[in-house]
Amino acid sequence: MSNKEQLLQKIESKELTVGVIGLGYVGLPLAVCFAAKKVKVLGFDTSYERVSKINSGDNYISDVDDNKLASLVQQERLIATNDFTTLSACNAIFICVPTPLDKFKKPEMSFIENACRQIGRHLQPGTFISLESTTYPTTTEDFVQPIIEEESGLKEGKDFWLAYSPERVDPGNKEYSTTNTPKVLGAVSNDGLEIGKAIYSIAVDEIHTVSSPRIAEMVKILENTYRLVNISLINELALLAGKMDINIWEVIDAAATKPFGFQAFYPGPGVGGHCIPLDPFYLEHIAKKFNFDLSMIHTAGHIDLLMAHRMTVKITSALNRQKKAINGSSILFLGVAYKPDINDERESPALKIMEEVENKGGEVSYHDPFISTVELGTGGRYDSVELSESVLKAADCVVITTNHSEFDAAFIEKNSGLIVDLRNVIEEASDKVYKL
Amino acid sequence: MSNKEQLLQKIESKELTVGVIGLGYVGLPLAVCFAAKKVKVLGFDTSYERVSKINSGDNYISDVDDNKLASLVQQERLIATNDFTTLSACNAIFICVPTPLDKFKKPEMSFIENACRQIGRHLQPGTFISLESTTYPTTTEDFVQPIIEEESGLKEGKDFWLAYSPERVDPGNKEYSTTNTPKVLGAVSNDGLEIGKAIYSIAVDEIHTVSSPRIAEMVKILENTYRLVNISLINELALLAGKMDINIWEVIDAAATKPFGFQAFYPGPGVGGHCIPLDPFYLEHIAKKFNFDLSMIHTAGHIDLLMAHRMTVKITSALNRQKKAINGSSILFLGVAYKPDINDERESPALKIMEEVENKGGEVSYHDPFISTVELGTGGRYDSVELSESVLKAADCVVITTNHSEFDAAFIEKNSGLIVDLRNVIEEASDKVYKL
Repeated sequence: MSNKEQLLQKIESKELTVGVIGLGYVGLPLAVCFAAKKVKVLGFDTSYERVSKINSGDNYISDVDDNKLASLVQQERLIATNDFTTLSACNAIFICVPTPLDKFKKPEMSFIENACRQIGRHLQPGTFISLESTTYPTTTEDFVQPIIEEESGLKEGKDFWLAYSPERVDPGNKEYSTTNTPKVLGAVSNDGLEIGKAIYSIAVDEIHTVSSPRIAEMVKILENTYRLVNISLINELALLAGKMDINIWEVIDAAATKPFGFQAFYPGPGVGGHCIPLDPFYLEHIAKKFNFDLSMIHTAGHIDLLMAHRMTVKITSALNRQKKAINGSSILFLGVAYKPDINDERESPALKIMEEVENKGGEVSYHDPFISTVELGTGGRYDSVELSESVLKAADCVVITTNHSEFDAAFIEKNSGLIVDLRNVIEEASDKVYKL
Repeated sequence: MSNKEQLLQKIESKELTVGVIGLGYVGLPLAVCFAAKKVKVLGFDTSYERVSKINSGDNYISDVDDNKLASLVQQERLIATNDFTTLSACNAIFICVPTPLDKFKKPEMSFIENACRQIGRHLQPGTFISLESTTYPTTTEDFVQPIIEEESGLKEGKDFWLAYSPERVDPGNKEYSTTNTPKVLGAVSNDGLEIGKAIYSIAVDEIHTVSSPRIAEMVKILENTYRLVNISLINELALLAGKMDINIWEVIDAAATKPFGFQAFYPGPGVGGHCIPLDPFYLEHIAKKFNFDLSMIHTAGHIDLLMAHRMTVKITSALNRQKKAINGSSILFLGVAYKPDINDERESPALKIMEEVENKGGEVSYHDPFISTVELGTGGRYDSVELSESVLKAADCVVITTNHSEFDAAFIEKNSGLIVDLRNVIEEASDKVYKL
């Protein structure tokens, strides 16, 4: 029986072991999906803390159900480890490691590279490998495949199969999770596509296959570039609308009544999280190699880069109405998460504004029901304060940076002397309410 | 009884006369909608040809039903005229005149100005006036109102009421027409909003009121700016994808499987028609007055401006494969309408490419099932040729510029020696099929 036939038989009978490298907000939900389908899952992570939490049945990803995780761990269907030699026991390996930008906003590929080297060293013939990390088109074929082949001495399409399938996790989305979000899949070889579709079908309802990994890589970048560009567009229009005495929120609500050809985006202090602020710049990176200038991404990035500063200017203008400067004023930020109702402050524009306000001599504090402590790039460390009448009253300026649904607009408005609302939480602008 | 009460009573009993100025693709469908609801409609146009056609029951707008128009004219519910003195007989006047850009891409406001002067000269107290033409925010209050008040000596809010309600006509859309597309309405005064809503409700199913005309003006610009920006984004990504050997159409189809947060746009030779290429630049115009630079619109416009030239470069590259130059080659364009299945070639990118090819010495011809003759900016005048085997075979290069649904991909591919497909009509690229 060929390697391929053997693997397809294991998939058919679900007698296979799946390895997931990187147990973050992408890898852990995927691992749980496979384990819930009675597949044995090994979860790999370099963080000892994550490994030990999982093996104790402790969940740390809000999109994952606590009880489900605990139960799967107890049944030994999901085992976490930082011992990468056990990759040799896996019939299918999913790479779900981060792809951040470095300090110069260039792709940081070291996590993918390290994962690939570990895979290559321990790879057994007949294994399927899929990269899920967002990255620039051509990565799978031109970066991942050579590393694995070099480390293992094995050949793609013969000894193992390599694919790319972008994660589409939307943290906090109650309707769409890993299982019911259609999955795009592109493989290096036709056999890889066939095998990959069979494996993913165990855990995911709908697989949309495409003709190459680079197509699948481009899909993810297109999805998030679309979001960056449209958020930057509406942010720029919001800044103009402010000058023209036009309530941009009312404009968007009215435009959203158009039943075709329009999708509403809402302004705010800038994009955050681990996808939208990063992914488009992976494309910009590879475009340079093709002597191509992506003016649209560049412009969107430029708008976004300036948003935190522009929001600080808005705070300055609001304080100025009361003859105050930022220097020496107490500024309370409501919400540091990058979007509502999640506990994630990565790349959050709130932190950037807090940094700038701190640098200008403002006394910074914050409240976030989901995040108890933050550390700024300046080194400043803050604990979330309670959201009380006295705390609001004591602030010279209250800045609404995240629209968590538990924020009580009337309570905030009543007890604050000055509000800069960047999220349309307070309905009406007034002398004391300054709106984006 | 006050002016307002009298007008509301006339609306209630439908005993009112409605005037529509400008009987183009916006005004004529609106006039027909009102007339169909048994309201007496006077249609005003400066074109003698249009007036005489309508009064003969001859329709010239493809979104209007021929029989319906003929019947309404016969029943004298719709009468066209170029005698603007009869505006004095109207209780409600809708301004549906063009707002093009001049040769320097600046707003050409003369059509609105002329309409307003005519209205002002013949305005009777108790009349409702609504501007539907797309224009920059503040036009209604700062441009239209002063002209009408000056010409008439009457005051808005007391003697007459002024509103803005953007047209949302999507030519060729079979699902959404004037009646079932929600209508956004903003008025200068509260009375105007109340009256306007009552009048529009005769002809349109759903009215979404907003707090000011400038909000309504901004709504329309946002809707079309969204489209320009996203079309330019996908066009730029398509150009990069071409260099990276990535089929952008396959990418878009795969991205469209994402069930949230994505709306698919498709590449092409550039935007056309009377809205998308123009509307955003009305906003750019007014933004200057507010000392504001709209970088996103600028970048999108820049990409679009270059598309026709880039498509000519693609034609050059395709011919080059067969050791031919544009100069002296015969180039057949399939489709000159700016979008499929309509008979409108205004601002069509096909014409711009034809001009450039003609300027470079190409022998230009075209086929379009909906448009029998075109005239280029160069002065060149062409009649549509038939789409036959021999015509395709005789062309050195066939360029698919519009994806009319009646185009038979297999027939075109079989009989053409070289194809540049800018609309994804031919499924697979090949030696003889060059795809955007």
